[in-house]
Order: sequence, then C-alpha cells, then structure tokens
Amino acid sequence: METLLTSRPSVGSARAIARSIREGRATAEAVVSKSLERAAASEAVLQAWHAFEPELALEQARRLDRQPAKGLLHGVPIAIKDLSDTSDLPTAYGSPVYRDHRPAMDAACVAALRAAGAVVLGKTATVEFGASRPCATTNPHNPLHTPGGSSAGSAAVVADGQVSLSTGTQTGGSIIRPAAFCGVVGFKPTFGSIAVAGTKSYAWSLDTVGGFANSVADVSLLFEAMSGHERSRFDESDCRPPRIGIFLGPFADVAAPSTVDALMRVAAACSRAGATVREIDAPAIFRHTLEWQRAISRYEMGRSLLPETRAFSPEELGEVLLAEIRAGQAVPETSYIAAKAGASRLATELQSLFADTDLLLALSTPGEAPFGLASTGDATFCLGWSLLGLPTLNLPAGTGPQNLPLGVQLVGPRYGDECLLRFAAWVERVVSDA
Amino acid sequence: METLLTSRPSVGSARAIARSIREGRATAEAVVSKSLERAAASEAVLQAWHAFEPELALEQARRLDRQPAKGLLHGVPIAIKDLSDTSDLPTAYGSPVYRDHRPAMDAACVAALRAAGAVVLGKTATVEFGASRPCATTNPHNPLHTPGGSSAGSAAVVADGQVSLSTGTQTGGSIIRPAAFCGVVGFKPTFGSIAVAGTKSYAWSLDTVGGFANSVADVSLLFEAMSGHERSRFDESDCRPPRIGIFLGPFADVAAPSTVDALMRVAAACSRAGATVREIDAPAIFRHTLEWQRAISRYEMGRSLLPETRAFSPEELGEVLLAEIRAGQAVPETSYIAAKAGASRLATELQSLFADTDLLLALSTPGEAPFGLASTGDATFCLGWSLLGLPTLNLPAGTGPQNLPLGVQLVGPRYGDECLLRFAAWVERVVSDA
Repeated sequence: METLLTSRPSVGSARAIARSIREGRATAEAVVSKSLERAAASEAVLQAWHAFEPELALEQARRLDRQPAKGLLHGVPIAIKDLSDTSDLPTAYGSPVYRDHRPAMDAACVAALRAAGAVVLGKTATVEFGASRPCATTNPHNPLHTPGGSSAGSAAVVADGQVSLSTGTQTGGSIIRPAAFCGVVGFKPTFGSIAVAGTKSYAWSLDTVGGFANSVADVSLLFEAMSGHERSRFDESDCRPPRIGIFLGPFADVAAPSTVDALMRVAAACSRAGATVREIDAPAIFRHTLEWQRAISRYEMGRSLLPETRAFSPEELGEVLLAEIRAGQAVPETSYIAAKAGASRLATELQSLFADTDLLLALSTPGEAPFGLASTGDATFCLGWSLLGLPTLNLPAGTGPQNLPLGVQLVGPRYGDECLLRFAAWVERVVSDA
Repeated sequence: METLLTSRPSVGSARAIARSIREGRATAEAVVSKSLERAAASEAVLQAWHAFEPELALEQARRLDRQPAKGLLHGVPIAIKDLSDTSDLPTAYGSPVYRDHRPAMDAACVAALRAAGAVVLGKTATVEFGASRPCATTNPHNPLHTPGGSSAGSAAVVADGQVSLSTGTQTGGSIIRPAAFCGVVGFKPTFGSIAVAGTKSYAWSLDTVGGFANSVADVSLLFEAMSGHERSRFDESDCRPPRIGIFLGPFADVAAPSTVDALMRVAAACSRAGATVREIDAPAIFRHTLEWQRAISRYEMGRSLLPETRAFSPEELGEVLLAEIRAGQAVPETSYIAAKAGASRLATELQSLFADTDLLLALSTPGEAPFGLASTGDATFCLGWSLLGLPTLNLPAGTGPQNLPLGVQLVGPRYGDECLLRFAAWVERVVSDA
C-alpha cells in the first residue's frame, strides 16, 4: 500500500537527526538551517506559521552545539502549536485579541521538550482557541483543501517535511483529523498523561496535549520527551502481532465507501501478517458519544473563555465566537453531568473489550480533506475517543479518490499508550510492506 | 454545641450583604469600606493578604453602585487565593520568583465571580505554589498557631470576619484543613466542576477550585457563582434528614480522641434530629489512598513546575522546592499509572456506598491547628477524598482542648455537590441548635 509520506522531501526523521547530532555527523545549527529553508520555501502557500523567528531558532541551535548531547531530542527542530505558551515567542492562541501576547513562562510541554534538547522553530497556526474560526493554513497536498483543525499548522509543517515533530492538542478531533487530512501520524495520548500547565484551556475534562510526526517511532519519541521520561523505551521489535478489533461504530454510514475500504485493506494486511482480526459491535450507548462530547466541550468552553468576554469587546471577539461562548454557558448543568455519567459508564463497558483486544481499528475521518478553507472538516469519528480519554493514533493509509491522504485510527486502553505505540509501529510496518 | 463563628465580629453573610445592596439599604462602596477597615485592623498580626489595593476595590464598588444589581453577588467583597490570576492585581502564586508577575487575564473562576457582581478585595497569601513553603499568615484564633494551608489567607480572612467569601484550591488538603483550623466552612466541589483556566496548575488530575464562607448557605452561593449558574437554586428547606455514614477509615488512630468525640457529638445530634446514622467500614484498599494521592500529586507537580526550574536559578527557587520538583520528576511512571488505576477502582467501590447513604461524616484533621508556623499541619484525612475527586465540606464542630476550632468533614458522591450542600445546611442547623 502506497503512502504519500515517502514521496515528499523531508528534513528526515527525528531519530535520525538526533542520532547524527549525537554522533557528531551533524550540528544542530545545520539541521535548523535546513528546516528554516524548507519552511521559507513553502510558507507563502502553506501559511502554517504564526510566529517564526529564524535568528532565535539558530541561537538555540548554536547554544546546543556548544553542549554535550544528552537529551532525547538534542538539536531536533520542533514546531509548537500556538495554544501552548512560549516565553520567547508570541502566543496568540489563534486569536486576533491576543496578537501582542507574550507569556511570562513556557507551557509545561514546551519546557519538557526544551529540557530534552529540542529547538523550538516557531509557533504553528491554529483554529482560534481551538474553537471554530479556521486559520489560513492550507493542505500541503493541495492548497485548495483544508488541512483539518484545530492543529492545522502543526500537521501541515510535518507533512511538508519542514520539521520531523510538532505538538498538537485535541479536545474533539484536533489532532487525529488534521493528521488524517495531511497524511501524517498524529497521536493523542491518554487524557491527563501530559501536563497542561501553560496550554490554553478550552474544555478541562477533554483537552489533551499530543503531536505529529512522519512515523510511529518518531511520535513515540515526542511522547516520551513530553512525558518527562528519562530515556527512550520505545522498541518495536519486542512486539507480537496484535489482536485487533475492527470498530466501525454507529456512525459508519457517514464515511465514504473508499474510506471504509482503506480501513478494510489495513485490516486484511494485518491479518495476513499474523494479527488476530475480528469485528467489534459497538456498545449501544456509543451512539450518545457525539452529544455527550459536545455537551461537555461546550459547557466547559463557555466557562474557560468567560474571562475573554469580559476583557474584550464583542467587536473584538467577533459574533461567531461570542455566540459559541454564550451557547456553552447556556448548556444546562444537568446535561453536562448526565454526559459525564454516560461517558463514565461507557468507559467501563469499553475497558472490558480490551481484556482480549490490543487495539481497536477505527475510522479517522469520513474521507479525504474537504475542498475549501472555511471548515476544518468532520470530527465525528474522533469525538467518542476524546470523550473517553483513550489514547488514539492516526496512521496514514493510502489515498482516496481525489489523491488526498486517508488515515485509520488505532485506539488503545486508558494508559496503554506505550503498548498502543508499539502495536501501531507493527501495523505501520505491515501497511508499508503491503 | 457552641461554634466559634457566632462569637466573632464580621461583615455579615454574603446573602445578607447581597440582599441589602439589592434592596437599596446599603451601597457596595459602604460594604467594601467596612471590609477594608476590618482587614486593616487585623493585617499586622494576621498577614493574610498578598496584594491589597483599597482604592482599586473601592473603584469596583462605585462602578457597581452605578449599575442595577443583577448578579448573585452584586457588591459583595471577596478574597481571591493568590494561585488564581487577576488582571488588575499582582499574582505571585505565593512565590518570590513571581513577585512582579502581572497576568494578562483573569482566571476563569475570578471572571465568573466578577460576572456575578463580586468585588475583588485582594489576593490572599498561599503556601508557595500550593507546595510546602508556608506563608506568613497566622491563625485568627491564636497567632502562634498555623492557619493550615495551602489556602491559608483565604481561610483566615473569612474566619476573621473581613469578608464573607473567599476562594481556595485543593489538591491534597488545601481547603478542608485550613477551614478546620480556622473554624470556617470550606467547600471543595467535585473535581472538574469549576473551570481551572488561569489558576496555577500543580497536579492537573487533582487541582480543584473551591472556597470558604461562614455558613453553608454562603458557600453555596459562592459555588453557584463560580459554576456560572444563572441564579441561586440553594434551598435548604426542601431537605429531609440525611442518611449519614460515619466514615472513620483506616487512619483514625492518627486523630486525637477529642477530635473523634467532636465527630461523634455531631453524629449523635443528627441522629436525635431524625437522621439515619450508621458506621461504614472503609473498603480495604482505602488505606492506599495516601500513597496513591502522593504518587499522582508529586508526579504531576514535577511536570507542571518544570518550566520554573528552567526559567529561574536554583538559588531563586530554593533548595526545598527544587528538591520536591526533582522528587516528583523521579516518581516512576508505573507508580503513577498504578495510583490512577487504584483510585479508579476505589471510586467505583465507594460509589455504590452512596446508593443508600446521602453523605459520609468523616474527620477533617487529626486535631486543632498545631503550634507554630513552620508546618501547615496534617492532611491525612483530606488526601483520599481529593484523590477520588468527591465533593467535601468542612463544617465547624466546636473547639478542642486548646480552645481552637475543630471541624468535621461531610463527603458526597461525585457531582452530588448540590445535594451535599443541602444536607450540610441541615447538619449545620442541627449542630448549631444542639
């Protein structure tokens, strides 16, 4: 099965970059320069960066070149979604009202990446506050199509080969959807596994920090560095073929037939390579996940963004955002609590599934990235997993009828992040060999 | 049973203040002036305020006096724990490294209180980052004793009658403990029920915004305003006698006999007034709650405060804090995940208890506030409920052998905050009549 990834020029994998710097075959400065050139060449069309100060990135690289390489990501350029604070770069959360904002402190995930030796190349464009006003970023495979959102810039710069790693956040579908549309690996860890300090709060029960890479191995490195682990424990070699549950769920008819076909081709390739594959019936209450995720997400965003409604005028905030905030404030508390209770019941039901299933194979999006930049596309297939807080990963899975990327979603049990990543690497290898 | 509350001069209840302003019998300016006078008279000994700008508070009050009273707390002065951001007052998180910090935006809980018409009187002293370096605040009942922590200033200013309401946060015992030591009502809602945006993150799985008042009715008003509810739904009259479970738990021998006696007196008074009271055997795994709460709290604080270790020198941060952060970073991920899994198992076990029990009656602290200001006292009896995310309330329950306040803790089921508050008002009435 062909993936688009191999056909694009790239700065190379994060593992390769880190190794070549560690072994003295490259300098951080040279690697950063290459990323900067690559970014400059694409930006006029891609519009993926919010804040981008080449001299600042080069300074960080030169400072790292004067030190011994000790961190997991020593000298590796990385892009940060602009919902996370940076002390040395502007942070606007995708909103014009924060255009001049300079946070006092790095977000915890940014500090963890810097502590691992990563060079922050810049901040990537995001849908405003992760809500709904799209940014100007275009799809790297076709600029007339959306890259998805809200982590639009972060998915685009990795797909475009400018950087090997970028951070993202997901509350509904903000990592998996742009990863699928841009043809990259996107990983949303278990809810609560990465520190949220300094990352703009939208819905505190759902907001999850994760990121993008061009391979499962690289996204694992990113996860380890953001988790504050001391060293890489990722080893895809110690992995038996997984027991896979095909989970189409109650919304499968929203998906294009070619998307379901792509998923079935992945399942067939895994089966041929020795995986146990069976179809899973979704619990009956899974059909409520859309309404539950929306109730929680809206209720909480109406409270998290209340300060902005007091600090800025309606004209500054804009009608659409203000209407969303007001709608969130109007969600009845009873609906909110019922949604939490329902999600908790469903989580218990699903957890038993994982007793004899290593991962669920699910749809990432209904199809390829839609035409136009006014919408970031449909997140139907992401909302349930966000609601449940389960770790989930988008794996590129060929292309659709318009020659744009398709992806499949691999879902693991709560806190089964490392196992999911190992099994995902197995599936990735099987798919690329197919 | 005598409580200390009635013996102290006070600005009066939040409900009475709000009503008198609404009915034109008082102005916000006059009410705020009274709070300011009361605060100024105590501050030399009490040391409860971090930032306090009388002119700013009076300006807010005058502005409210020119508007129609519409919010729940129109004109009511309130104190904000200095872990929550304020756009018009310095916010230091109790730390010298943030002494000049001026946040760009109010925390969500502050914005909600302002939206309800509250006047922010100032920021109250807190243990540094809510970790362990105490602030200078003294116990309002005896300045040689700790007020408890970390929400020291917020508990003290309410106990001292300077304000009727203040905010607090709890990760371990930071609301219930100071409430018990200062003899006030402290309420920690269900984890996740109040927006955390703009409140300094310490342990994202545990941090909960709540607050203090001199009565259950007032703390209910505070909770409603912070939750972003439109109007007060608190009505203690529609409350049958509760079914109470006495929960001494596996650590009861840490408590002084007089503390257990106080709890038993409350239980007896409730029983006489018609409540069903029975003793509850703690689930066997409850004894792990201390180790689980600590594993999660330390693991997460080591990651949340990582940015500070990069931005400030070891000398600026101090040896003790730095050692705590490093120890948190060294907590094995396996211990962290095991603690989460254990807590989840215990939560399920306890939830079934609430099928035929309205509230648990538990110890708040081992005894009265200890002598000295070097430690904020023992949080043993708070950690389990924080770990489980259950709503919990400290109710003053007379005094101990040193004539300092004692409290009892009332615990409700997840998201049963409103019921817990109604039943707590019932218990409060019974106790004050006894």
